[in-house]
Amino acid sequence: MGDIVLVHAARERLSGHVRETPMLSSPFLDKVAGRRILVKAECLQHTGSFKFRGAWAAITALPEGQSSRGVIAFSSGNHAQGVAYAARLKGLPACIIMPSDAPVTKIRGTRSFGADVVHYDRESEDRESVVERVNSSRRMTLIRPFDDPAVISGQGTCGLEIAEQSLQAGIGDAEVLVPCGGGGLTSGISLALEAHAPHLRVRPCEPEGFDDVARSLKSGVIERNERESGSICDAILTPSPGNLTFPIMSRLCGPGIAVSDGECLRAMALAFAHLKIVVEPGAATGLAAAIFHGDRIERDTAIVVTSGGNVDHDTFAQALASPTPFPEQ
Amino acid sequence: MGDIVLVHAARERLSGHVRETPMLSSPFLDKVAGRRILVKAECLQHTGSFKFRGAWAAITALPEGQSSRGVIAFSSGNHAQGVAYAARLKGLPACIIMPSDAPVTKIRGTRSFGADVVHYDRESEDRESVVERVNSSRRMTLIRPFDDPAVISGQGTCGLEIAEQSLQAGIGDAEVLVPCGGGGLTSGISLALEAHAPHLRVRPCEPEGFDDVARSLKSGVIERNERESGSICDAILTPSPGNLTFPIMSRLCGPGIAVSDGECLRAMALAFAHLKIVVEPGAATGLAAAIFHGDRIERDTAIVVTSGGNVDHDTFAQALASPTPFPEQ
Repeated sequence: MGDIVLVHAARERLSGHVRETPMLSSPFLDKVAGRRILVKAECLQHTGSFKFRGAWAAITALPEGQSSRGVIAFSSGNHAQGVAYAARLKGLPACIIMPSDAPVTKIRGTRSFGADVVHYDRESEDRESVVERVNSSRRMTLIRPFDDPAVISGQGTCGLEIAEQSLQAGIGDAEVLVPCGGGGLTSGISLALEAHAPHLRVRPCEPEGFDDVARSLKSGVIERNERESGSICDAILTPSPGNLTFPIMSRLCGPGIAVSDGECLRAMALAFAHLKIVVEPGAATGLAAAIFHGDRIERDTAIVVTSGGNVDHDTFAQALASPTPFPEQ
Repeated sequence: MGDIVLVHAARERLSGHVRETPMLSSPFLDKVAGRRILVKAECLQHTGSFKFRGAWAAITALPEGQSSRGVIAFSSGNHAQGVAYAARLKGLPACIIMPSDAPVTKIRGTRSFGADVVHYDRESEDRESVVERVNSSRRMTLIRPFDDPAVISGQGTCGLEIAEQSLQAGIGDAEVLVPCGGGGLTSGISLALEAHAPHLRVRPCEPEGFDDVARSLKSGVIERNERESGSICDAILTPSPGNLTFPIMSRLCGPGIAVSDGECLRAMALAFAHLKIVVEPGAATGLAAAIFHGDRIERDTAIVVTSGGNVDHDTFAQALASPTPFPEQ
């Protein structure tokens, strides 16, 4: 995997089905970040996250005979909803394996698209073996959350849009801050930018304590997180980068940046106040890096991907109540 | 006033300065509304509301000699921010007369764009006379919030986008639900649709008790509201439709729809959960009408304008905590 041709092919399949999400900005964010900030609002994508891109790309890449039994996926909720909705649009059954502590809004969302939801315990069970057990009789096609060429290519279409929109906005050099779990979005965007906007460099952004990608990029080999839960950034608490995504990130990305849960909450409040978008904790790591770790960023402009907005009312209220470091906001 | 040529001219002046805001949708909203719903997310416009369109259109229409002393405006906050930001971009001083009970976020936003803010009491003072008093020495150019051909034309550019986006989405007949205060946005959109999408009919949407436009459309003459405060829909508590906007609305709009404050709060929560956008109470009247007053809507598709997102944390938290009539959301 590493072929821009696959990203272009995914874009063809996604055309007319995926939203081109807007690139937003605010003078206040530029001011507090100390540089120009452009926000790629992927939370406005169908199903509330970029995951619909990869899910649609993967399902539409299946040979006809293979897809008829339906699709199965494991996910904390965004890939779940992306796969469930894409399957519904294609008229296929879908079964989703979700951790029992997934946000309620994500469980409800997945069910609302008609998928069969099966829960597992994130700490005591291995999700791949749960998938195998559930699927032994159903024999549905597994749609992996990130380590799949079609999925990576689908997420890469977000990068094609970034390349075009940054050109329109007159952006020269910039760093692109991407919330990173297993690396599907990060590697997909990296491939698209390598081909179409090589002056833009991707920086993976992760929660503190779950910075497996940053550590892997540093050591040069795949590192794992010690834990699988314990941050509010539920969407990106993946154990380690993928076998397909890591080589791409290793070749193309700058160093990773880790941010705290509190910084994500404050970034969510800033996105609420100044961009009028709803961003979930894990999808706010890029904006948190831009606002609170500007010393780690090397160029005058940062393009920030806010990758999803599927957040429960209580967590969002917590973000709104979090103390701001910018009293004038 | 009533000339589509002015709307086209405004679009020329706005090109490259205004955002083309996206048209969003969600299967859940279609389900609870009982018809197809498309949401024109104008809360994602610069300064967090459509008002930037009219402000930019008006300021760029001023003769050069007239604008040099700067501009003055009265507004509860959205027109204030639109004028303040447009003036700053043009390098002009701005003075904004705001009610003392305007939302804090709007006052801070207006000041953050460098405008001089002067407060008045909404109940005891007449805002036009406050403007005259403040402006007797400054002699700045007044940018009216709605009853100005350039402002109406600027807001009309939102209607041009609706005409194009609904064509792309394959929409035939539809009603267009527009939050309505003085009628600048409503009449501007009506003019654009009359020329470019005559199969789309505008319906003004107002808060209960402040339905001056609905009553005026019914009686055929300009009616006034009894009060000027007493609803959370601060952005659209205008005393009466304008002398320029009313004839346009009277000629082109269907009957007005009034919604309760509680319905607006619940519509805000639905926009949060299913569209990932931040909508302020007054800007949620159209979505509230679509969800809770579907029996008043006559066509299979409703296009809903969410006209702004400048809402304080406390009010938004109140919306998130409001009881939902749709437990499965």
